[in-house]
Amino acid sequence: MKIKFTPFVRKVKYYETDKMAIVHHSNYIRWFEEARIDFLEKAGFPFEKMEAEGILMPVLEANCKYKHPSRFGDTVEIYTEITEFNGCRLTVRYKVINVTAGRLLCAEGCSKHCITDTNMRPIRTQRSHPEIFKVFSEAVISE
Amino acid sequence: MKIKFTPFVRKVKYYETDKMAIVHHSNYIRWFEEARIDFLEKAGFPFEKMEAEGILMPVLEANCKYKHPSRFGDTVEIYTEITEFNGCRLTVRYKVINVTAGRLLCAEGCSKHCITDTNMRPIRTQRSHPEIFKVFSEAVISE
Amino acid sequence: MKIKFTPFVRKVKYYETDKMAIVHHSNYIRWFEEARIDFLEKAGFPFEKMEAEGILMPVLEANCKYKHPSRFGDTVEIYTEITEFNGCRLTVRYKVINVTAGRLLCAEGCSKHCITDTNMRPIRTQRSHPEIFKVFSEAVISE
Amino acid sequence: MKIKFTPFVRKVKYYETDKMAIVHHSNYIRWFEEARIDFLEKAGFPFEKMEAEGILMPVLEANCKYKHPSRFGDTVEIYTEITEFNGCRLTVRYKVINVTAGRLLCAEGCSKHCITDTNMRPIRTQRSHPEIFKVFSEAVISE
Repeated sequence: MKIKFTPFVRKVKYYETDKMAIVHHSNYIRWFEEARIDFLEKAGFPFEKMEAEGILMPVLEANCKYKHPSRFGDTVEIYTEITEFNGCRLTVRYKVINVTAGRLLCAEGCSKHCITDTNMRPIRTQRSHPEIFKVFSEAVISE
Repeated sequence: MKIKFTPFVRKVKYYETDKMAIVHHSNYIRWFEEARIDFLEKAGFPFEKMEAEGILMPVLEANCKYKHPSRFGDTVEIYTEITEFNGCRLTVRYKVINVTAGRLLCAEGCSKHCITDTNMRPIRTQRSHPEIFKVFSEAVISE
Repeated sequence: MKIKFTPFVRKVKYYETDKMAIVHHSNYIRWFEEARIDFLEKAGFPFEKMEAEGILMPVLEANCKYKHPSRFGDTVEIYTEITEFNGCRLTVRYKVINVTAGRLLCAEGCSKHCITDTNMRPIRTQRSHPEIFKVFSEAVISE
Repeated sequence: MKIKFTPFVRKVKYYETDKMAIVHHSNYIRWFEEARIDFLEKAGFPFEKMEAEGILMPVLEANCKYKHPSRFGDTVEIYTEITEFNGCRLTVRYKVINVTAGRLLCAEGCSKHCITDTNMRPIRTQRSHPEIFKVFSEAVISE
């Protein structure tokens, strides 16, 4: 049985809007990063700890589908899940719910990552970092 | 026979780097937008003209695959192509070549758009805006 | 006697860092905006209400002095005060305290604004918007 | 007699606009950085060379006065000058001219910097780096 983490909550900043008066689409990729960092902290493996152990998690791929615009001042909740993990590669999925707009799904997407050392060489965490392996494996949600 | 447009060229800005000393991944989505706007201008249909005719091109989807990092001061060329167009929806594909790093492919991705009026209602350009329809249709590259 | 508002609190985002591994200096100007918007809300005059009444507060001037760098994951508190208000023009002062780094003052600055209508024409709020005039006047801290 | 450098020229990006449909004020601080880097290159001391010699130029202070808004697609020229240099500290002044809007002065500002080693310790360039000292001293414009 999987643990359900509380979503990451944030308000839309003024400087995140563009001349269409909606959040510029590039910012969702930044929100995904904020939500991922929050998720790792809640899962017991904060980014700072990862960096202290000499581990990086560079982004291999990112995508986002835009459903409804978000506007300045709106509160959004971002739900984050790990959907795939093989000890080295990781897929993270995000759903952005606009609370102010009546809990509309405004965007969803995912990012793919590789776990590497500080020289960007892939790591097989099963052997080298069993603690990370355990945390990530247990966090995987089967779809 | 398809017209080949010159790529969009830009240098990596200092403020686009992050603490890994590489370009933050979210910026590629912004570069795609810059390249798309440059492409539309070269194709004879600049964004300003589109907006003057009351047409918007909101982003439905965006994605990027990261192959090699780019660094401060690097010169990149972005090659842009329209790969799909049905009169209303559009797929644009991008390749980012890092010239400084020996013409390495550092990222590729695509964005999907809908052509709408200023109320975000989809437009069928065949009838309503034959000039746009012609420009976009002729720009499609069959893969 | 002046009301003391609680500071605006936020964590440093990964994408706000640059290749020196510190927060890029331009982001402090964005943090000031976040803090100002939070302050207006706490003072009883949220930005949304201002916009609903057809009032804008464009920035005339902004400055920041950088004392100590902030890093990814740090928690900062931003203290905001109105130091000048003449019914039309406004000076807002900010102090950024890095809690994680032992409550170090990491930056301080100010922004100057003009209260205008939606056509960017200055407004004398005494007569036209006494409620705004009252809120801002009462918030002024004499130095 | 002082050398006059050609200005740094750039177009306003879509993602630099905000919901007022003008360039967000924080971006001018980023433009100043772009202009400063371009200026150093033209003056014969590119940033890459500085970093290769183990020299940093952290920002101590930045400010900007906003005169007229800039809009998406506008071409701006940024004129950069060094107004003060004592071997260790540096003041750089910027003027942003909006060419599209009829060569209007849309913003002006300055930034102050300290020349340091990679541990952020101030350097007196007269002795340690006479080449930098010469380049910067000759670039100073007396007001």
